[in-house]
Amino acid sequence: MLDPDLAARLKRTPDGLVPAIVQQHDTGEVLMLAWMNDEALERTLTTGQGTYWSRSRGELWVKGATSGHTQAVKEVRLDCDGDALLLKVDQVDGACHTGDRTCFDADQLL
Amino acid sequence: MLDPDLAARLKRTPDGLVPAIVQQHDTGEVLMLAWMNDEALERTLTTGQGTYWSRSRGELWVKGATSGHTQAVKEVRLDCDGDALLLKVDQVDGACHTGDRTCFDADQLL
Repeated sequence: MLDPDLAARLKRTPDGLVPAIVQQHDTGEVLMLAWMNDEALERTLTTGQGTYWSRSRGELWVKGATSGHTQAVKEVRLDCDGDALLLKVDQVDGACHTGDRTCFDADQLL
Repeated sequence: MLDPDLAARLKRTPDGLVPAIVQQHDTGEVLMLAWMNDEALERTLTTGQGTYWSRSRGELWVKGATSGHTQAVKEVRLDCDGDALLLKVDQVDGACHTGDRTCFDADQLL
Protein backbone atom coordinates (compact mmCIF):
# COMPACT_ATOMS: atom_id res chain seq x y z
CA MET A 1 0.00 0.00 0.00
CA LEU A 2 1.08 3.56 -0.59
CA ASP A 3 2.74 5.16 2.43
CA PRO A 4 -0.14 6.77 4.41
CA ASP A 5 1.71 10.06 4.95
CA LEU A 6 2.30 10.39 1.22
CA ALA A 7 -1.28 9.34 0.43
CA ALA A 8 -2.55 12.05 2.78
CA ARG A 9 -0.61 14.73 0.92
CA LEU A 10 -1.98 13.94 -2.53
CA LYS A 11 -4.67 16.21 -3.95
CA ARG A 12 -6.65 14.07 -6.35
CA THR A 13 -9.15 14.83 -9.12
CA PRO A 14 -12.81 13.98 -8.42
CA ASP A 15 -12.11 10.54 -9.92
CA GLY A 16 -9.27 9.85 -7.50
CA LEU A 17 -6.30 10.48 -9.80
CA VAL A 18 -3.14 12.60 -9.88
CA PRO A 19 -1.56 13.69 -13.19
CA ALA A 20 2.03 12.52 -13.76
CA ILE A 21 4.27 14.51 -16.11
CA VAL A 22 6.85 12.24 -17.72
CA GLN A 23 10.12 13.83 -18.85
CA GLN A 24 13.25 12.36 -20.45
CA HIS A 25 15.86 12.76 -17.73
CA ASP A 26 18.80 13.90 -19.85
CA THR A 27 17.29 15.84 -22.76
CA GLY A 28 14.39 17.45 -20.90
CA GLU A 29 11.80 16.42 -23.50
CA VAL A 30 8.32 16.30 -22.01
CA LEU A 31 7.17 12.89 -23.26
CA MET A 32 3.62 12.47 -21.99
CA LEU A 33 1.14 13.05 -19.21
CA ALA A 34 -0.59 10.05 -17.69
CA TRP A 35 -2.77 9.47 -14.67
CA MET A 36 -1.99 7.66 -11.42
CA ASN A 37 -4.15 6.32 -8.67
CA ASP A 38 -2.49 5.48 -5.35
CA GLU A 39 -1.62 1.95 -6.45
CA ALA A 40 0.00 3.14 -9.67
CA LEU A 41 2.20 5.54 -7.70
CA GLU A 42 3.13 2.84 -5.22
CA ARG A 43 4.11 0.44 -8.00
CA THR A 44 6.09 3.12 -9.83
CA LEU A 45 8.05 3.90 -6.67
CA THR A 46 8.73 0.25 -5.83
CA THR A 47 9.34 -1.26 -9.29
CA GLY A 48 11.03 1.68 -11.02
CA GLN A 49 8.79 1.18 -14.08
CA GLY A 50 6.29 3.88 -15.10
CA THR A 51 2.93 2.49 -13.99
CA TYR A 52 -0.33 4.34 -14.62
CA TRP A 53 -4.11 4.07 -14.39
CA SER A 54 -6.09 3.76 -17.61
CA ARG A 55 -9.40 5.58 -17.25
CA SER A 56 -10.76 4.06 -20.46
CA ARG A 57 -9.84 0.46 -19.58
CA GLY A 58 -10.31 0.82 -15.81
CA GLU A 59 -7.03 -0.89 -15.01
CA LEU A 60 -3.36 -0.36 -14.24
CA TRP A 61 -0.85 -0.43 -17.09
CA VAL A 62 2.92 -0.55 -17.18
CA LYS A 63 4.44 1.61 -19.89
CA GLY A 64 5.99 -0.61 -22.53
CA ALA A 65 4.46 -3.88 -21.34
CA THR A 66 2.91 -4.33 -24.81
CA SER A 67 4.98 -2.06 -27.05
CA GLY A 68 8.39 -2.67 -25.55
CA HIS A 69 8.79 1.10 -25.23
CA THR A 70 9.62 0.93 -21.56
CA GLN A 71 10.40 3.69 -19.09
CA ALA A 72 13.08 3.29 -16.47
CA VAL A 73 12.19 5.76 -13.71
CA LYS A 74 15.15 7.83 -12.48
CA GLU A 75 13.37 10.31 -10.21
CA VAL A 76 9.87 11.09 -8.90
CA ARG A 77 8.87 14.49 -7.50
CA LEU A 78 5.63 15.82 -5.98
CA ASP A 79 4.69 19.44 -6.51
CA CYS A 80 4.14 22.12 -3.89
CA ASP A 81 0.41 21.51 -3.48
CA GLY A 82 0.37 17.74 -3.97
CA ASP A 83 -1.69 17.73 -7.16
CA ALA A 84 0.96 16.82 -9.74
CA LEU A 85 3.87 14.40 -10.07
CA LEU A 86 7.01 14.77 -12.17
CA LEU A 87 8.79 11.60 -13.32
CA LYS A 88 12.24 11.74 -14.89
CA VAL A 89 12.73 8.63 -16.96
CA ASP A 90 14.80 6.96 -19.62
CA GLN A 91 12.28 6.26 -22.39
CA VAL A 92 13.02 3.56 -24.97
CA ASP A 93 11.93 4.70 -28.45
CA GLY A 94 8.63 6.57 -28.65
CA ALA A 95 6.49 7.43 -25.65
CA CYS A 96 3.32 7.88 -27.70
CA HIS A 97 1.08 5.06 -28.89
CA THR A 98 1.13 6.78 -32.32
CA GLY A 99 4.86 6.07 -32.61
CA ASP A 100 5.84 9.70 -32.01
CA ARG A 101 8.65 10.36 -29.55
CA THR A 102 6.31 12.48 -27.42
CA CYS A 103 2.52 12.72 -27.12
CA PHE A 104 2.82 16.45 -27.83
CA ASP A 105 4.51 16.21 -31.24
CA ALA A 106 1.44 16.18 -33.40
CA ASP A 107 -0.73 19.12 -32.38
CA GLN A 108 0.59 22.65 -31.96
CA LEU A 109 -2.12 25.20 -31.11
CA LEU A 110 0.10 28.28 -30.86
CA MET B 1 -15.13 31.87 -26.78
CA LEU B 2 -12.82 28.95 -27.32
CA ASP B 3 -12.88 27.63 -30.90
CA PRO B 4 -15.66 24.98 -30.95
CA ASP B 5 -13.56 22.41 -32.85
CA LEU B 6 -10.79 22.72 -30.26
CA ALA B 7 -13.29 22.64 -27.40
CA ALA B 8 -14.76 19.42 -28.80
CA ARG B 9 -11.34 17.73 -28.77
CA LEU B 10 -10.56 18.43 -25.11
CA LYS B 11 -10.96 15.58 -22.64
CA ARG B 12 -11.66 17.23 -19.30
CA THR B 13 -11.62 15.99 -15.71
CA PRO B 14 -15.01 15.53 -13.99
CA ASP B 15 -14.71 19.17 -12.83
CA GLY B 16 -14.29 20.45 -16.38
CA LEU B 17 -10.53 21.08 -16.38
CA VAL B 18 -7.47 20.13 -18.43
CA PRO B 19 -3.98 19.98 -16.85
CA ALA B 20 -1.39 22.30 -18.41
CA ILE B 21 2.30 21.41 -18.09
CA VAL B 22 4.43 24.57 -18.10
CA GLN B 23 8.01 24.25 -19.31
CA GLN B 24 10.79 26.82 -19.74
CA HIS B 25 11.21 26.98 -23.49
CA ASP B 26 15.02 27.10 -23.68
CA THR B 27 16.26 25.12 -20.69
CA GLY B 28 13.55 22.47 -20.63
CA GLU B 29 12.85 22.89 -16.91
CA VAL B 30 9.36 21.71 -16.01
CA LEU B 31 8.17 24.68 -13.95
CA MET B 32 4.66 23.77 -12.80
CA LEU B 33 1.37 22.12 -13.60
CA ALA B 34 -1.78 24.22 -13.44
CA TRP B 35 -5.38 23.71 -14.49
CA MET B 36 -7.31 25.30 -17.33
CA ASN B 37 -10.97 25.56 -18.08
CA ASP B 38 -12.00 26.52 -21.63
CA GLU B 39 -11.86 30.22 -20.90
CA ALA B 40 -8.36 30.01 -19.43
CA LEU B 41 -7.13 28.25 -22.55
CA GLU B 42 -8.81 30.80 -24.80
CA ARG B 43 -7.20 33.70 -22.90
CA THR B 44 -3.79 32.01 -22.91
CA LEU B 45 -3.98 31.57 -26.68
CA THR B 46 -5.14 35.11 -27.36
CA THR B 47 -3.13 37.12 -24.80
CA GLY B 48 0.10 35.11 -24.76
CA GLN B 49 0.11 35.17 -20.93
CA GLY B 50 -0.25 31.94 -18.93
CA THR B 51 -3.85 32.05 -17.65
CA TYR B 52 -5.27 29.33 -15.42
CA TRP B 53 -8.28 28.33 -13.32
CA SER B 54 -7.90 28.34 -9.55
CA ARG B 55 -9.96 25.51 -8.06
CA SER B 56 -9.54 26.86 -4.53
CA ARG B 57 -10.57 30.43 -5.38
CA GLY B 58 -13.04 29.53 -8.14
CA GLU B 59 -11.67 32.12 -10.54
CA LEU B 60 -9.25 32.71 -13.39
CA TRP B 61 -5.73 33.90 -12.62
CA VAL B 62 -2.94 35.25 -14.77
CA LYS B 63 0.49 34.00 -13.75
CA GLY B 64 2.49 36.91 -12.37
CA ALA B 65 -0.41 39.34 -11.99
CA THR B 66 0.35 39.66 -8.27
CA SER B 67 3.95 38.43 -7.97
CA GLY B 68 5.39 39.95 -11.12
CA HIS B 69 6.70 36.48 -12.04
CA THR B 70 5.08 36.52 -15.44
CA GLN B 71 5.06 33.90 -18.17
CA ALA B 72 5.36 34.84 -21.82
CA VAL B 73 3.87 31.94 -23.75
CA LYS B 74 5.97 30.81 -26.71
CA GLU B 75 4.14 27.65 -27.74
CA VAL B 76 1.02 25.64 -26.78
CA ARG B 77 0.55 21.96 -27.67
CA LEU B 78 -2.31 19.51 -27.10
CA ASP B 79 -1.50 15.86 -26.52
CA CYS B 80 -2.62 12.88 -28.58
CA ASP B 81 -5.80 12.18 -26.61
CA GLY B 82 -6.75 15.75 -25.78
CA ASP B 83 -6.38 15.46 -22.02
CA ALA B 84 -3.18 17.47 -21.45
CA LEU B 85 -1.62 20.72 -22.65
CA LEU B 86 2.07 21.62 -22.87
CA LEU B 87 3.03 25.29 -22.69
CA LYS B 88 6.55 26.45 -23.50
CA VAL B 89 7.12 29.78 -21.79
CA ASP B 90 9.68 32.31 -20.73
CA GLN B 91 9.25 32.46 -16.94
CA VAL B 92 10.44 35.53 -15.03
CA ASP B 93 12.10 34.49 -11.74
CA GLY B 94 10.39 31.68 -9.83
CA ALA B 95 7.31 29.87 -11.05
CA CYS B 96 6.36 28.64 -7.56
CA HIS B 97 4.50 30.69 -4.97
CA THR B 98 7.14 29.46 -2.48
CA GLY B 99 9.82 31.37 -4.38
CA ASP B 100 11.35 28.21 -5.85
CA ARG B 101 12.18 28.24 -9.56
CA THR B 102 9.87 25.23 -10.09
CA CYS B 103 6.99 23.76 -8.09
CA PHE B 104 8.84 20.42 -8.12
CA ASP B 105 12.03 21.58 -6.39
CA ALA B 106 11.04 20.85 -2.82
CA ASP B 107 9.79 17.27 -2.68
CA GLN B 108 11.66 14.34 -4.18
CA LEU B 109 9.98 10.98 -3.53
CA LEU B 110 12.45 8.76 -5.40
